[in-house]
Amino acid sequence: MEPIVCRPIGIIRSPFKEPRGTPIQPPAAAGIEGSVEVDPAYAKGLKHVDGFSHIILLYHFHLSRPSPLQLKPFMDDEAHGVFAMRGSSRPNTIGLSVVRLIERRENILRVQDIDIVDGTPLLDIKPYVPQFDAQDRVGVRIGWLEDNVHKLSTTKDDGRFA
Amino acid sequence: MEPIVCRPIGIIRSPFKEPRGTPIQPPAAAGIEGSVEVDPAYAKGLKHVDGFSHIILLYHFHLSRPSPLQLKPFMDDEAHGVFAMRGSSRPNTIGLSVVRLIERRENILRVQDIDIVDGTPLLDIKPYVPQFDAQDRVGVRIGWLEDNVHKLSTTKDDGRFA
Repeated sequence: MEPIVCRPIGIIRSPFKEPRGTPIQPPAAAGIEGSVEVDPAYAKGLKHVDGFSHIILLYHFHLSRPSPLQLKPFMDDEAHGVFAMRGSSRPNTIGLSVVRLIERRENILRVQDIDIVDGTPLLDIKPYVPQFDAQDRVGVRIGWLEDNVHKLSTTKDDGRFA
Repeated sequence: MEPIVCRPIGIIRSPFKEPRGTPIQPPAAAGIEGSVEVDPAYAKGLKHVDGFSHIILLYHFHLSRPSPLQLKPFMDDEAHGVFAMRGSSRPNTIGLSVVRLIERRENILRVQDIDIVDGTPLLDIKPYVPQFDAQDRVGVRIGWLEDNVHKLSTTKDDGRFA
């Protein structure tokens, strides 16, 4: 299959200047502010995005290094497949975060709960819609994270994937 | 910023042979089965993925055509910005669906709730984790979809973005 070329449509700004020390998921970054600077050429695509309280950011894990297909995630001492974890070292280094949209000013979105390193290239913005994206927790199984997700708020990126 | 090159890691199989008639989100495809054929070269990356009841598929909307930055989505007669909607015509044609993982057999994942056209190139698989990805519906605003999301189960892709 042919390679797919993506072009960054903007840049993500946050207080986190390097992977080490960055919160590892949005809930671990609750209230932390950042911004999404959309290239003005794409600003028209933001029409009505401010009606949504949350947006999904897709972005390029531009600092991650190539990795084996199994490795230890931040919250466990056992190795798992890269497709069973959310770390930045993966075959296609695309990151996904659901963040809170506070305000839009022209091509700039002010956001909260940001777990993304400053300067990260933005690939897409999608409105977060619980009716599309959320599964009731009853009946959802989260594998190796069942016994480990409690570590979320106390675990930071330790730089292992950069 | 430099372009980012993604390489498909597999292919998505579904009963939907063309965009027209395809359900427009996973809940509108409840129970419909498909499979994710991961390239055997990446099969090791699937270790422990079967512990998760749901996975996030990122894929290439390979049939979508270039579009203006504002257009009418399937469920509304008003135009919105592409970043306020989920349609396949967008600057970087990356799709996202949360599907139910039924079974893994080596490099093949059997899934349900599939809203993806057969033959779609797969870019990434991430485990779905409500503690990371889900927002309580209380307090979530969904903009223009508030008055339109009720049309989800009765609306199909009409081919407008292909």
